[in-house]
Amino acid sequence: MDINTITSTKNEYIKEISKLKTDYSEKYILEGVHTIEEALKYGVIESILFTNKNTIKLSEYGDAIKKYLITEEVAQKISAVKTNQGVFAVCKIIEKEIDLSSNVLVLDDVQDPGNMGTLIRSAKAFGFNSIVAGERSVGFFNPKVVRSTQANHFSMSLVKKNLEQMIKFLKANEYLIVGTFLNQDSKKTITSNTKFKDKKIALILGNEGNGIDIEYLESIDVNYVIKMSEEVESLNVAIAGSIIMSSIYKI
Amino acid sequence: MDINTITSTKNEYIKEISKLKTDYSEKYILEGVHTIEEALKYGVIESILFTNKNTIKLSEYGDAIKKYLITEEVAQKISAVKTNQGVFAVCKIIEKEIDLSSNVLVLDDVQDPGNMGTLIRSAKAFGFNSIVAGERSVGFFNPKVVRSTQANHFSMSLVKKNLEQMIKFLKANEYLIVGTFLNQDSKKTITSNTKFKDKKIALILGNEGNGIDIEYLESIDVNYVIKMSEEVESLNVAIAGSIIMSSIYKI
Repeated sequence: MDINTITSTKNEYIKEISKLKTDYSEKYILEGVHTIEEALKYGVIESILFTNKNTIKLSEYGDAIKKYLITEEVAQKISAVKTNQGVFAVCKIIEKEIDLSSNVLVLDDVQDPGNMGTLIRSAKAFGFNSIVAGERSVGFFNPKVVRSTQANHFSMSLVKKNLEQMIKFLKANEYLIVGTFLNQDSKKTITSNTKFKDKKIALILGNEGNGIDIEYLESIDVNYVIKMSEEVESLNVAIAGSIIMSSIYKI
Repeated sequence: MDINTITSTKNEYIKEISKLKTDYSEKYILEGVHTIEEALKYGVIESILFTNKNTIKLSEYGDAIKKYLITEEVAQKISAVKTNQGVFAVCKIIEKEIDLSSNVLVLDDVQDPGNMGTLIRSAKAFGFNSIVAGERSVGFFNPKVVRSTQANHFSMSLVKKNLEQMIKFLKANEYLIVGTFLNQDSKKTITSNTKFKDKKIALILGNEGNGIDIEYLESIDVNYVIKMSEEVESLNVAIAGSIIMSSIYKI
């Protein structure tokens, strides 16, 4: 097994990797044993970097994956967390088409990486195989997003697209477009999951502060409102989305 | 209206307030207009501190609440976020008894402040008026927790207690004790909300990585398992808890 050693934070490859924390358009960085073991199954790993506290079995990572022994100082440079686990993987982003046989989650301007990551994890749990995010949303491969997914993003179709076009496309493909507008006294409002039976669902969630952009109100077929106390203005967006996806999964 | 001015980060009161970011056992700090307006309704505010970018109506905050004009430098010293809104309140923690007429959320070692805050918000939305957290859980008044509640914690009974004793106490008060153990092939396992009808529920959620401590397995009456894809190991704890609370609220 070929293993290179990197001891300097000024090494060119390390400089390139460090940039992935903020520029994750083509590659991104993974941290931690569990996530990297999961990534191996999907053939997305370009290289592995590890310190002497690493616990993954390097022999399982074939010759096509480059291996680098790094110092703790270098690990701290590339890590996005305070206490790193001593193992990192640089992964390629492989774009997948939307799975038109499955439900789709549509995210209009979700900003918080924790919310985005949690939504990816919940979407997978509840059979929403594709997520389309509008251009203003936080990136799918932001390190904090990836951490929150708990290694559940590899099988998903994660697509950034213009939402207006996307909603038209989903409508044309016979999706029921489900909105989550608050305070919309609309005839479209429903509070139970009965309308979802035998339908392909495209569920739209909005921004943490402002909800879904009002321009999409016309496009929705139904507006789902979660029953809750009137004393609470709204739920966290990842919570609301997961409750609805769960209620669709159950039927 | 009496307004004092503080221009130094070394002012004794500012030093005291800065400590509340990590020691929130008796008082805690609130940031932001919306949250502070909400706090006013509950009579918990001891003082208001504001910079010249403040937008709250000071006249609504009576004479019993001390008012301090502070500099941006002082604001940055007491703020827990990068971009502060220019207004802070120091609040008293008022302990409330558990509401024994309502459902109770029991948190065994929830560590992430975002999860704790989101659970407080969801608990209020779904009529769980009390939350009991074990001693190892993150504090209710940690600044990040308070931020995630979105001003929904004021009306709640938030109690830190020994959970073993608490579960006995809830049992004695005729609560149905609901666990959320994963991978427990137990006769107690249920996957629908039918058992919850006309019962007072105590729902136990566990640690982000390890779930509920196994020592509580004996104490539970039923173990609720959320239906989901087998490809996903688990849900985020705030998501799982909110889905179950929502399903209980609906019946």
